[in-house]
Amino acid sequence: MADAKPQDSGAAEGNLAEEFAVPSQVEEVKSRMAEFAERHGAAGRRVVLITSGGTKVPLESRTVRFLDNFSSGRRGASSAEYFLDSGYAVIFLHRHRSLYPYTRLYSGINLLDALTVEPAEDRSARVSVDQSALPNIAATLKRYQAVKSSGLLLPVEFSTLSEYLHLLKAAAQALSSIGSKAMFYLAAAVSDFYIPASEMPEHKIQSSNGPLQISMKMVPKMLSPLVRDWAPGAFIISFKLETDSSILLERARRALDTYRHQAVVANVLDTRRGYVVVVTCHAQHELQLSDEDALNNVEIEERIVSNLEAAHRAFMLQG
Amino acid sequence: MADAKPQDSGAAEGNLAEEFAVPSQVEEVKSRMAEFAERHGAAGRRVVLITSGGTKVPLESRTVRFLDNFSSGRRGASSAEYFLDSGYAVIFLHRHRSLYPYTRLYSGINLLDALTVEPAEDRSARVSVDQSALPNIAATLKRYQAVKSSGLLLPVEFSTLSEYLHLLKAAAQALSSIGSKAMFYLAAAVSDFYIPASEMPEHKIQSSNGPLQISMKMVPKMLSPLVRDWAPGAFIISFKLETDSSILLERARRALDTYRHQAVVANVLDTRRGYVVVVTCHAQHELQLSDEDALNNVEIEERIVSNLEAAHRAFMLQG
Repeated sequence: MADAKPQDSGAAEGNLAEEFAVPSQVEEVKSRMAEFAERHGAAGRRVVLITSGGTKVPLESRTVRFLDNFSSGRRGASSAEYFLDSGYAVIFLHRHRSLYPYTRLYSGINLLDALTVEPAEDRSARVSVDQSALPNIAATLKRYQAVKSSGLLLPVEFSTLSEYLHLLKAAAQALSSIGSKAMFYLAAAVSDFYIPASEMPEHKIQSSNGPLQISMKMVPKMLSPLVRDWAPGAFIISFKLETDSSILLERARRALDTYRHQAVVANVLDTRRGYVVVVTCHAQHELQLSDEDALNNVEIEERIVSNLEAAHRAFMLQG
Repeated sequence: MADAKPQDSGAAEGNLAEEFAVPSQVEEVKSRMAEFAERHGAAGRRVVLITSGGTKVPLESRTVRFLDNFSSGRRGASSAEYFLDSGYAVIFLHRHRSLYPYTRLYSGINLLDALTVEPAEDRSARVSVDQSALPNIAATLKRYQAVKSSGLLLPVEFSTLSEYLHLLKAAAQALSSIGSKAMFYLAAAVSDFYIPASEMPEHKIQSSNGPLQISMKMVPKMLSPLVRDWAPGAFIISFKLETDSSILLERARRALDTYRHQAVVANVLDTRRGYVVVVTCHAQHELQLSDEDALNNVEIEERIVSNLEAAHRAFMLQG
């Protein structure tokens, strides 16, 4: 999310339903999120909404082609694990088929390469996991099952930009009841551009019509109504990914000045797994993995979550 | 692939390396494909090259955003299984992380939801598959392992349009030695449009620059040099997907008239899993699943492959 654009700050809220089709499940999901937040809030637990993965922007209404953002969802999925370890309840708003907490550790592996079949004496065959193909699988599975049965993880899926925008708004409203106990950790790679439904061709664009000119409007900045109207008491973190490190910090600070939320996690595409800067109103914290960390499979998300958990605690005491 | 565009018919071959960066692994992959084709051709086996999944078209050279095509790779992956069942050796040229033969049957399932852990008497835990969560897994696994050890399936991956185009050319050249024993089954959803490297910004496009205008060139039609120059003796099938059924057959026939290959498998987005038309120079065959077929989990790809296998056999006898 997140460039400075004063003129668009009010547009998002009013026009959302006009410009972006409302997904059918949004009210049902909103109820589930509200119930989740109330239950955990009442138990004195903090709740983080994590957004994760890229958004799909259709070029045709019966969609064959779409614009997408580079994002596997790795950062969101691994951060969810560290938030759970830190005692948070987690709403995981993620792109359909992007990486998922715990399962992400085996994402590059073909399932069938990791299984073995043993014929049994009766006619049933037993299928087992080859644990050398799925390192640490027994421990990961136990942790996954414990999280699942604890009710501390609520997964919600989106695919398109429209779905993302409506579900983010619904989540913000659902979390408003717990005030400063709520954190928004907006790690999804959200498109800055879209084609309004009214300007979208119905059918597949024909290549026989010649070269393609695509004209895209700017997506309204949701951070503005989120901070101001939907979740004014919450602790809100946006992310800023750039490929050019020379403009990174200036852009992060400009986003903070514009939206007045609590922090921007700034990172550069090539180094994002080993280095980020947490930029707040008064300070900036560089988080960097050392060579030793890398050898020990430490992940930068552990450091990010640790930093933000402490900042969130301080924020709640102030409020 | 595949619209009629006489003026671009020669462009692909000459300009490929200029307009589309050559992937580093192309020569190594070409050698493996050539060795595979020769080995199986010498054994009297037919070889099919299946292309599968959508192509990624970057908008920036350090890519954050890209254009993509709707395609899970389901049709290509399931067709590969039926070609293997029919005795073909299969080169499976597929988009990275698109659906894969056999594994595709479990693609919607979270791996960790399908496993159970049993503590053993010694400290090792045994991890087993819950076979109710992965229906028919023992039989599928045995078939997968048999195919793998037979050496009849050669998987090759692409992500971007450039990789696809270069690997398709390499495959065509690699298969030229077996003449009419080769089939090309071009099921991938290939972009019709791209941004030339020379016109691409290096860094992430900034949303602060305002609305986005994208101007895309047409991708050269590879079918033309494929049929004429690279694989003149082969049996070549292209696919035509439309959302508007009223233009489908006319466009399929126009592609055949232009490229003079052997067949177009024509299908409409909404009905593609139950109905296709195999259009050839002299005829068109409608293939449709009945309600009973659907109840029995028959897949349309079984019918498509059966139809084309027979046509390929007839083609080889003519040649």
